[in-house]
Amino acid sequence: MKLLEIYAKMKGDINKIENELERVVSDEQPLLSEAALHLLKAGGKRIRPVFVLLGGKFGTYNLDDLKKVAVTLELIHMASLVHDDVIDDANTRRGQLTVKSKWDNRIAMYTGDYIHGQALTQIAQIKNPKVHEMLSKALVEMCIGEMEQIRYFFNTDQSIRNYLLRIRRKTALLLAISTQLGGIVAGCAPQQYNALYRYGYNVGMAFQIRDDLLDLYGTEKQIGKPPGSDIRQGNITLPVILALEDAQVREPLLAEIKRIHDEGDRADTSRAIEYIRNSEGSQLADELANRYIEKALAVLEHLPSNSARKHLVEIAHFVGKRNY
Amino acid sequence: MKLLEIYAKMKGDINKIENELERVVSDEQPLLSEAALHLLKAGGKRIRPVFVLLGGKFGTYNLDDLKKVAVTLELIHMASLVHDDVIDDANTRRGQLTVKSKWDNRIAMYTGDYIHGQALTQIAQIKNPKVHEMLSKALVEMCIGEMEQIRYFFNTDQSIRNYLLRIRRKTALLLAISTQLGGIVAGCAPQQYNALYRYGYNVGMAFQIRDDLLDLYGTEKQIGKPPGSDIRQGNITLPVILALEDAQVREPLLAEIKRIHDEGDRADTSRAIEYIRNSEGSQLADELANRYIEKALAVLEHLPSNSARKHLVEIAHFVGKRNY
Repeated sequence: MKLLEIYAKMKGDINKIENELERVVSDEQPLLSEAALHLLKAGGKRIRPVFVLLGGKFGTYNLDDLKKVAVTLELIHMASLVHDDVIDDANTRRGQLTVKSKWDNRIAMYTGDYIHGQALTQIAQIKNPKVHEMLSKALVEMCIGEMEQIRYFFNTDQSIRNYLLRIRRKTALLLAISTQLGGIVAGCAPQQYNALYRYGYNVGMAFQIRDDLLDLYGTEKQIGKPPGSDIRQGNITLPVILALEDAQVREPLLAEIKRIHDEGDRADTSRAIEYIRNSEGSQLADELANRYIEKALAVLEHLPSNSARKHLVEIAHFVGKRNY
Repeated sequence: MKLLEIYAKMKGDINKIENELERVVSDEQPLLSEAALHLLKAGGKRIRPVFVLLGGKFGTYNLDDLKKVAVTLELIHMASLVHDDVIDDANTRRGQLTVKSKWDNRIAMYTGDYIHGQALTQIAQIKNPKVHEMLSKALVEMCIGEMEQIRYFFNTDQSIRNYLLRIRRKTALLLAISTQLGGIVAGCAPQQYNALYRYGYNVGMAFQIRDDLLDLYGTEKQIGKPPGSDIRQGNITLPVILALEDAQVREPLLAEIKRIHDEGDRADTSRAIEYIRNSEGSQLADELANRYIEKALAVLEHLPSNSARKHLVEIAHFVGKRNY
């Protein structure tokens, strides 16, 4: 099943959010609007807004409130992408030029700050203090996750636990609060919004593991940027950590990573990718992603069986699917 | 009167805020904490926290709530400084190495995002929706102000109005909401917190004009970075705009600005500074700063005469004073 088919029944509300995203980032300041709209138009799965809407279906579905939360979370995600592209010195994302590449790093930094600020103007309209508490904590954790990623660049001694903690902060938390805050603003009971949180969290973990695998297995067209970008940048992902535990592969892979580190931005990563693919690492990472999806599906059993739950099942299967 | 003397009677509460600032940015992530503490320890006038506290004195002074607002606003200010240093490629601030210089641009970007995130965890604890609305709008305006500054780099055709709008966004708004939010969380009536806003706004405008003059008149020790940094970077400030209206100076100054633009980072700005000092521009800028101070003082007449008002008068005089 494709994501668009899963989304089909929610199309009306998703379109409203899309329009709202555009409206919120449009401003009299021409460059900020242009940069923000450029980013918005490059698309994306809009999985955070969809999670918010689906979370809201377990309570009193009020699109006005849900829209504000959905727009906030998508904009915060977008703002983090603009800053990540500066850090990663990335020229393309989703096959489009990045803001830092189409304009420059300065514009990208303020565009990120601006989009982030506009996100806050939306959430400021939500009166529930729990929403502000969860969101602000997630924002801090996201920064820590990004910083931990930098700190562990080219560190081939890191543990699986280390990686998992990092992607939890970097990716899974924002997805977790997407479903959760949808539930909270719809007035769900704690038991329900906690289940929604755990669903989002587990799907988020699987999502990031799959994304890290895609960087090793996908084509440039699929990924929207050159394959092997992670390892070139020094981001040691789960399949690499697991491949390093494979005695057959460890030594030559370590030598390759060292060479990539020394050669820098233009280093050829094809041999390293080959080693990782031929190790047990990829399959083990694949299995771990599947385990997170199973956990996400199990959590859904705690929620009433309705069409939203059906959608969440489909999205979990979609995220869990190998797409490379 | 020195700022420390003005602050003397509030020392206890200011120290509590200082400790709280340290606590809030300290985290298990070593690099983020270290970078944030480095910035914090470099000092600063802490004018935003002081404004919050003084604003609070016009209502029911509750240090717990005021502390949260004060810490939020100071951290937001600090976060913007870290990002500005990346943009400005600045190596020193307040005589200390900047985060981007002591570490690198990546660390600086995430340190800024992190401090900003921690600021939000504090304000999230304040239930009053008006606080969130005012703050989030100010954040957006600050970004727009910074972007307008970039947009007008080396633009010698800009108007005074243009400059004033920019510093309003970049500097004055955050100071305006400092006094205002202090009043709001202390339960002041709109008439009072609006007066507090106007006071902070006018002091903020004067503050930025004085700061821009200081960059042309101060010594490296006073400024904490090399003089002439603004013009070298392309930031055409009020004294420059006014000097360009002086027929005696216009042509040679234009030629100097063009040369500085062409030569880039290492351009010698001493001749341009000489032209500006010898024009009527500096004096006119000086007068405008004084006028904002007078407005700030006039606004205070709308507030009850108490010791906080006396402090605000002293601070306005302090900001208004020529310090070069």
